[in-house]
Amino acid sequence: MSDLSPIRVAFLLFPDVTQLDLTGPAQMLSRLGNTTIDLVAQTLDPVMADAGFALLPTATFESALPPDILCVPGGMGVNDAMEDADTLGWVQRAAAGADWVTSVCTGSLLLGAAGLLEGYRATCHWAQHHHLAAFGAIPVKQRVVIDRNRATGGGVTAGIDFGLTLVAAIRGEAHAKLVQLALEYDPAPPFDSGAPERADAATLVRFQAMGKSAAAARDARIMAAAARLRPAPS
Amino acid sequence: MSDLSPIRVAFLLFPDVTQLDLTGPAQMLSRLGNTTIDLVAQTLDPVMADAGFALLPTATFESALPPDILCVPGGMGVNDAMEDADTLGWVQRAAAGADWVTSVCTGSLLLGAAGLLEGYRATCHWAQHHHLAAFGAIPVKQRVVIDRNRATGGGVTAGIDFGLTLVAAIRGEAHAKLVQLALEYDPAPPFDSGAPERADAATLVRFQAMGKSAAAARDARIMAAAARLRPAPS
Repeated sequence: MSDLSPIRVAFLLFPDVTQLDLTGPAQMLSRLGNTTIDLVAQTLDPVMADAGFALLPTATFESALPPDILCVPGGMGVNDAMEDADTLGWVQRAAAGADWVTSVCTGSLLLGAAGLLEGYRATCHWAQHHHLAAFGAIPVKQRVVIDRNRATGGGVTAGIDFGLTLVAAIRGEAHAKLVQLALEYDPAPPFDSGAPERADAATLVRFQAMGKSAAAARDARIMAAAARLRPAPS
Repeated sequence: MSDLSPIRVAFLLFPDVTQLDLTGPAQMLSRLGNTTIDLVAQTLDPVMADAGFALLPTATFESALPPDILCVPGGMGVNDAMEDADTLGWVQRAAAGADWVTSVCTGSLLLGAAGLLEGYRATCHWAQHHHLAAFGAIPVKQRVVIDRNRATGGGVTAGIDFGLTLVAAIRGEAHAKLVQLALEYDPAPPFDSGAPERADAATLVRFQAMGKSAAAARDARIMAAAARLRPAPS
């Protein structure tokens, strides 16, 4: 694979990231061939993810080399991250020189808060999808959305479909099919409950109840981030 | 979720693990509720995974508490790991007290080398599946196989189906469906190339060519591990 052009992929890493938002596409993208994967955070200290273990940054906002692909994962920590000027600043700088500006799950809200989705078609985790428009994005209900050099994936596990789609866009369909076979990506979910349109009513009710106490505060923070980006006309 | 019984999940961590073998099921199992996830390695030093970044152990073979669920991921590093007496020793000790003894991808070969699959139905990455029988396991071509308290998943991405299946077995179907909805597990692979039965001929030829130079040496090491487990009658 030494005849393949080198590709540097940088994932933003922040506390309380949903780790599969990052590790799923990282597995696919690491098979682009001739690829470097960076996990970029404020410092080199381990960053606690949502699942009970830490991920280790490979570079900081100051030391990271400019990536060819920027990817912002999501998770509960996205609200803090989108209020942090250093984080938004690095995302903007990295995006400026990148061939691909991408996200998985609620990472698209952070891209939005950085002003990087205005006028772009984009997707997000289904439960937060309605927030995209506040950042000037054009919300599209699809598992993977590509609009010019913006590629966004839906919630969590959608990062795997997103990653494989990006592999095909960059290295071609034959390469992507080889990666799919190597990673045995032949999904067989034991239930059909992965989208609100198909989940049963009891599951939906439980899901809504689960997030209810935190939802209002989170929504207010997302609205505030959008207002900072696009001040209401006075 | 405080009325749920506590569950400790331990993943074996070793150099050159296929990180999604671990991080995929870890995401699902972290949503069991009242769960602790341990990544257990020889030392607490960062462990380089296959995808270009390190994972950080939470415990060592000496300090790890006995898990309720033991999970062994796979990857190219499995060959070294299955030749390491400390690793096999910890896997055997952890398995002895666990409710569930599990693996993803070629992790089942390591379980086999530890003598933990004799007489059990099991699966493995499709390209290494034929090695299971050498360890006394009963090979089953399925994405997830459960036989008594052994649960094994197929290659890499099968760990997500494996994880969700285990969530259902432990916490019930309603809980699993809620986790599936929260993680938007509604896969939509862009191609149908994730299994050798459906990949096109060109992809299969490229896959076989890719691994060919290393295959003979790897196969010999797996056979040697099986021979140590079950000496041929003299």
